[in-house]
Amino acid sequence: MKKAIYPGSFDPVTVGHMDLIMRSAKMFDELVVGVLDNYRKQCAFSVEERVEMLEVLTKDVPNIKIKAFSGLLVDFAKQEDAHIIVRGLRAITDFEYELQMAQTNRQIDGGIDTVFLTASAEYSYVSSSAVRELALFGGDYSGFVPCEIMPYIKKGFDGSR
Amino acid sequence: MKKAIYPGSFDPVTVGHMDLIMRSAKMFDELVVGVLDNYRKQCAFSVEERVEMLEVLTKDVPNIKIKAFSGLLVDFAKQEDAHIIVRGLRAITDFEYELQMAQTNRQIDGGIDTVFLTASAEYSYVSSSAVRELALFGGDYSGFVPCEIMPYIKKGFDGSR
Amino acid sequence: MKKAIYPGSFDPVTVGHMDLIMRSAKMFDELVVGVLDNYRKQCAFSVEERVEMLEVLTKDVPNIKIKAFSGLLVDFAKQEDAHIIVRGLRAITDFEYELQMAQTNRQIDGGIDTVFLTASAEYSYVSSSAVRELALFGGDYSGFVPCEIMPYIKKGFDGSR
Amino acid sequence: MKKAIYPGSFDPVTVGHMDLIMRSAKMFDELVVGVLDNYRKQCAFSVEERVEMLEVLTKDVPNIKIKAFSGLLVDFAKQEDAHIIVRGLRAITDFEYELQMAQTNRQIDGGIDTVFLTASAEYSYVSSSAVRELALFGGDYSGFVPCEIMPYIKKGFDGSR
Amino acid sequence: MKKAIYPGSFDPVTVGHMDLIMRSAKMFDELVVGVLDNYRKQCAFSVEERVEMLEVLTKDVPNIKIKAFSGLLVDFAKQEDAHIIVRGLRAITDFEYELQMAQTNRQIDGGIDTVFLTASAEYSYVSSSAVRELALFGGDYSGFVPCEIMPYIKKGFDGSR
Amino acid sequence: MKKAIYPGSFDPVTVGHMDLIMRSAKMFDELVVGVLDNYRKQCAFSVEERVEMLEVLTKDVPNIKIKAFSGLLVDFAKQEDAHIIVRGLRAITDFEYELQMAQTNRQIDGGIDTVFLTASAEYSYVSSSAVRELALFGGDYSGFVPCEIMPYIKKGFDGSR
Repeated sequence: MKKAIYPGSFDPVTVGHMDLIMRSAKMFDELVVGVLDNYRKQCAFSVEERVEMLEVLTKDVPNIKIKAFSGLLVDFAKQEDAHIIVRGLRAITDFEYELQMAQTNRQIDGGIDTVFLTASAEYSYVSSSAVRELALFGGDYSGFVPCEIMPYIKKGFDGSR
Repeated sequence: MKKAIYPGSFDPVTVGHMDLIMRSAKMFDELVVGVLDNYRKQCAFSVEERVEMLEVLTKDVPNIKIKAFSGLLVDFAKQEDAHIIVRGLRAITDFEYELQMAQTNRQIDGGIDTVFLTASAEYSYVSSSAVRELALFGGDYSGFVPCEIMPYIKKGFDGSR
Repeated sequence: MKKAIYPGSFDPVTVGHMDLIMRSAKMFDELVVGVLDNYRKQCAFSVEERVEMLEVLTKDVPNIKIKAFSGLLVDFAKQEDAHIIVRGLRAITDFEYELQMAQTNRQIDGGIDTVFLTASAEYSYVSSSAVRELALFGGDYSGFVPCEIMPYIKKGFDGSR
Repeated sequence: MKKAIYPGSFDPVTVGHMDLIMRSAKMFDELVVGVLDNYRKQCAFSVEERVEMLEVLTKDVPNIKIKAFSGLLVDFAKQEDAHIIVRGLRAITDFEYELQMAQTNRQIDGGIDTVFLTASAEYSYVSSSAVRELALFGGDYSGFVPCEIMPYIKKGFDGSR
Repeated sequence: MKKAIYPGSFDPVTVGHMDLIMRSAKMFDELVVGVLDNYRKQCAFSVEERVEMLEVLTKDVPNIKIKAFSGLLVDFAKQEDAHIIVRGLRAITDFEYELQMAQTNRQIDGGIDTVFLTASAEYSYVSSSAVRELALFGGDYSGFVPCEIMPYIKKGFDGSR
Repeated sequence: MKKAIYPGSFDPVTVGHMDLIMRSAKMFDELVVGVLDNYRKQCAFSVEERVEMLEVLTKDVPNIKIKAFSGLLVDFAKQEDAHIIVRGLRAITDFEYELQMAQTNRQIDGGIDTVFLTASAEYSYVSSSAVRELALFGGDYSGFVPCEIMPYIKKGFDGSR
């Protein structure tokens, strides 16, 4: 059985993330979406909220599981007994950072490999940071996030700043 | 069953190609290595020689098959009933071309997706064209190709030019 | 009056070209689409066919004119009394080539400047060469070209090869 | 009438900014230079100082106006009734960020488009951050800023740190 | 006599740094490794520790000297009477930043030039930040640093966080 | 004694080449400019003409020698007993190709290393191919080549096409 991990911050989940999650779930027998609990990065949404958003959005796909993690990605992969890491590529700067991380992870644990999927053309410019920026200044972010999570974002940014 | 295709010219096969083939064969249930018979590109080795080199090198891995193809990659994938294309990424210029091809292929056939693997660091500079250049001028290409195919290259470039 | 030139090969015209032409025509008072007659590049369509395709597609936009040209772009711009060149950017490799050309053109004639438009996300992977490749091998290129020019492409590639 | 906006931080104004402003003012009927008042970015100069520097430098060009703004760029453009955003490109990393922003802005408001100008070769390495770094450590920044604003920089960094 | 400077943070020294230092020391008559004391960047190791690590690692190479510096690199180069700056390149994003710095430094002092060396393939993904990340989370960083400095890292991260 | 090789086609020599040659000659004790006699690339100028142009331009710099070569660059370097190769970098696409060549050359002969210099900002867009294009169509290339070689270019392109 081929088990893969798709790690990220998902702060918040975008239509771009969902595109990659659904495509990955078709490629591998099981997909674990790993929600990073990063003590150094201040997030707009709590880990619990981010896990919940993803659970709502993937509840109809039986081979997807949502889990929070902290620490090194390779340790999380080992703990889940997954040998494949899935990452999205949108831009060159993504590519360089991701290439370095993939090689670092293979050096640390030779049994873990990384595959990259490229964003679908129509989502290539979508990012969580754009959603947060738009939400903060009252802009229209409805084209960037799945409609199921609009209430989370409204709540998260209501009266903020 | 997850079946993937790894297409290329393999003119000749390098240690970089073999690294990607072996890593891909672990990720998917079946891997078809597609040897492109491109009427527009003059190759140093015939399609038959390139298929033979790959067969020699993969004979001990039961889930790998070697096949020649011509025409559109998506047509070959459909014919093989494979839904995943595997491609290697070494550099930015690779990335842009590959990104464009992946999006074109998904536009033509939405059921076919592409995953990218990055070259292992120690093979990141290895290319078939470097092997041909070295062979042509009597340079030492032994670090670039699997030792099993050294005789093919010696034969191919013997007395050439 | 601000007059701009949008030069290209248009071999054949794609939906990506039309997107840039229509957007440019809104930005400047007059737009001359310059069809390059390049003696060094073998085209699939004649200059006359390429001019005709563009005329059909822009006949309802009064501030667009289609003209063939050969030789240096700056000489064509001077002859048309246009001070602005419009170019599309899809990828990094485009960017570098275009940056070099823009600086070369300003060095040759300081009165001529270049502006860049980026491809709309949904057309970012569309290229004339992909259309030609698909047409050649019987693939489906209908999502890549305006429907008005489908007959030209069918005719151009009918029975070819 | 074609009205364009050139937004930026201008902290401080460099010879590179002035090159882009003067070239843009020739291309469009009216140019609004928008000085971003970004609550998240600590600037070396106040918004008032940055507006004043630009007013001093453009006072002889009647079709240029200087205005401060905060919030979303598309909202500022709408408020000014401008349909074109002008941005400078120096490097690949600029390109990717700018491409994403341009596509985000067109998604939010389809009536607003972005054009890019590339820095003139001789100013390609000039940046506001280099000026601040040089000013801080007593280096010579006279080749990086218009001479009219040298007194502002001297005053701003006098006795700092 | 050709004297060169190789500046950096070395927080901590990696096998990639040592590769560049040893290669540079062969190319020039004298090499000064400059350890940057940057008041704006919080380092994991003190300047004294970083100088000491480098001294331990280069003690057998007579034409290498280790010195701490702060302020502008060109001022440090002038003070050392060195006319060449050596920098490593791993990635495109490095390249753009380094290109801009090299041109800025030549503009400030025309007598100082910069040469670039590219990382050896097998060290292309090694970085000080990866070492710190691994050390922080109890990962295995032994392939990333010279064994002589393992005790420094153990001490620096012992009980941290 | 540190001896370096600067290889190239120099078809024809540009002000950008001369900038790199003069800067390299200051960095190393001896500089051999290697003029590539490439049987696969049709040149506008013969090897003899290209060597002569460079000799005219460097006749006052005693530590520069001009030599033609064919075959592998590492073989030429060994024959000249030079351990350093100097290459210019203008753009990202240069960078990737050059990085691959540098790593290939070090793999073939570990005693040979490559250093990169970046083009001066004002010459960053100058290329031999732009000179040939301009010469072919009667454009003004006087800002791109040293004035001493203008007669060679006039002669080379007189009545061509």
